Amino acid sequence: MRTISILGATGSIGASTLDLIRREKDKWRVVALTANGNAAELARLARAFGAQVAVVADEAALPALREALAGSGVEAAGGVEALVEAAARPAGLTVAGIVGCAGLVPTMAAIRQGGTVALANKEALVSAGDVMMAAVSRHGATLLPIDSEHNAIFQCLAGNDPAHVRSITLTASGGPFRDWTQERLDAATPEQAVRHPNWDMGAKISVDSATMFNKGLELIEASHLFPVGLDRLRIVVHPQSIVHSMVEYRDGSTLAQLGPSDMRVPIASALAWPARMDTPCGPLDLAAIGELTFRAPDEERFPATRLAREAAQTGGAAPAVLNAANEVAVAAFLDGRIAFSRIAAHVADMLARYNGAAPATLDDVLAVDEEARARTREALEAV
Amino acid sequence: MRTISILGATGSIGASTLDLIRREKDKWRVVALTANGNAAELARLARAFGAQVAVVADEAALPALREALAGSGVEAAGGVEALVEAAARPAGLTVAGIVGCAGLVPTMAAIRQGGTVALANKEALVSAGDVMMAAVSRHGATLLPIDSEHNAIFQCLAGNDPAHVRSITLTASGGPFRDWTQERLDAATPEQAVRHPNWDMGAKISVDSATMFNKGLELIEASHLFPVGLDRLRIVVHPQSIVHSMVEYRDGSTLAQLGPSDMRVPIASALAWPARMDTPCGPLDLAAIGELTFRAPDEERFPATRLAREAAQTGGAAPAVLNAANEVAVAAFLDGRIAFSRIAAHVADMLARYNGAAPATLDDVLAVDEEARARTREALEAV
Repeated sequence: MRTISILGATGSIGASTLDLIRREKDKWRVVALTANGNAAELARLARAFGAQVAVVADEAALPALREALAGSGVEAAGGVEALVEAAARPAGLTVAGIVGCAGLVPTMAAIRQGGTVALANKEALVSAGDVMMAAVSRHGATLLPIDSEHNAIFQCLAGNDPAHVRSITLTASGGPFRDWTQERLDAATPEQAVRHPNWDMGAKISVDSATMFNKGLELIEASHLFPVGLDRLRIVVHPQSIVHSMVEYRDGSTLAQLGPSDMRVPIASALAWPARMDTPCGPLDLAAIGELTFRAPDEERFPATRLAREAAQTGGAAPAVLNAANEVAVAAFLDGRIAFSRIAAHVADMLARYNGAAPATLDDVLAVDEEARARTREALEAV
Repeated sequence: MRTISILGATGSIGASTLDLIRREKDKWRVVALTANGNAAELARLARAFGAQVAVVADEAALPALREALAGSGVEAAGGVEALVEAAARPAGLTVAGIVGCAGLVPTMAAIRQGGTVALANKEALVSAGDVMMAAVSRHGATLLPIDSEHNAIFQCLAGNDPAHVRSITLTASGGPFRDWTQERLDAATPEQAVRHPNWDMGAKISVDSATMFNKGLELIEASHLFPVGLDRLRIVVHPQSIVHSMVEYRDGSTLAQLGPSDMRVPIASALAWPARMDTPCGPLDLAAIGELTFRAPDEERFPATRLAREAAQTGGAAPAVLNAANEVAVAAFLDGRIAFSRIAAHVADMLARYNGAAPATLDDVLAVDEEARARTREALEAV
């Protein structure tokens, strides 16, 4: 029996995780399940999986949660403090699936337990990478990445010494606009941007895929997870999204991880690590797929990866500024207030103008994040 | 300092191995270097690498070897017994690079030392698989495959439990005739068959690549090296020969090894295992390569892989018969005595007609081999 807590149980990472747990229910005991405000769904999951505690971050949803859990034996709690307390309860594995900066504090609480944290929260490493990695090392925690690219790299590094790595290559689908000219990009609409060819995702992350900021954020994450040096981190555009990432070694061997575009594959890898578990994902049939193509990213049309590399190089507050500025600019694009190509331009502008002190604590990170958002909003209004 | 012996030092595996050793000469002490009859080249290598002993299998070449090594301090020896004695001298690593059945006995002597054997000799596992693997287990030896496909699989299995393997896929270039119609295949000449698109190889192995017997032999080898069950071993045609093989796990993750068509990459992997060493092989540039294609093998036009799978399934003497019959039929094809398509037909015929007892010893294997060759020659003369 292993114990597990899922932060963000009603989101897509939570759903994929629970789908896997359900298939081997006798092996897992669920400690905490958390959600933002969807009390009904959280209560249903907590009952189905016999959770010890269910927490809604939004305290206003607590009465509904209490009512839905009445007589179930599942503890109900609400509010950010309760969320952090639940994340801090001992669990062999914590799946950190809360998106955005809201996930930072509970993820940090899970790391402080010193157990294993399966990380899906991008902000944790993009905005708070140094702070988070210091905590991982201080508390002896183990981070297992469940982003498909980082999980692929993690698998390709198994049994190998990072000192022998020549380069790590993140693959990128290139997004829905990969073949578009600059002119078409300038006129791209939110509707066009949210149609992702390979993955079914939310609006924000779909736009990030279209701008390639998604890959830029992953580059920053990779620089924390796999500290082989920024100059050893590469990106290649691979439209089929079959190869999830690669590691090349000093002897000329490259190991790659391939698989379906199904988050249950990397999540299963983290759940069963260092062993493997069954998933319902069918076999890879390369003969049926026929071809895998690769091309260099075009950082003229898609400057996001270049900006992310520069932010990682600068370090300190820069990655948090990039992330915050991008979120605000994407929201403005989705609202029809700025053109698609202006997203990267605004981020570049913020990186050039705002040079906050390097955050030393999570509070510092949150302050940088807030400040950068405010400045980006101001800049957008000034346009 | 590690000690190394190279059986077949003047062949292509030997040359690639020595090219790597030369780059880190202070880390290696050479025990034995052996060759068939090229005394001059063997003496040159033995002097350059300060070998303890140099052996020519062909005793007639011993006087020339003695003369060439005079005053060098390198011991000179000749004949099969001396070869086996040299292979049996303690060495941390033995590279078994002698081709054909001539390599069986010295490879077995190296295995009996209980050290690590980097295996390039196909016959060892194809003809004598059961006998050889029993010796590996009895003497606690470690086999490291240096065929590019098997080395790829070995790398993709690192850190994983074979019990979690869903399938193993060997890639095949498909050879120079992969797009030919049956009519063209029937008229294929030896000159056409020896032009391999990706690897620079000898005539016999080039024909094996053209018939796909090479891949069939590798399938049999894989069944011994990676005993996950024959039904879990697959073949996919991949004309670019960039992906050298793949392992799919039960969770839907596939790990693949990619690299240049340069034997120094798998050899380096074996030399440095479980660490890694530098090679002069440049980085893999998938963006420059552009595309990797895959298709199912056509076992109508190329029945070799089907025959090999059947021989592996039958077990006992069948794989040795397949190997011997193929060698004789390939020689007849190269001599212009039979048509290209008749190679597989003769092998199929021999497999159907000759059902020798399962070999229990190396002598049994050699007897099956001899008998199968004689019968194939007879059958060819009867045509």
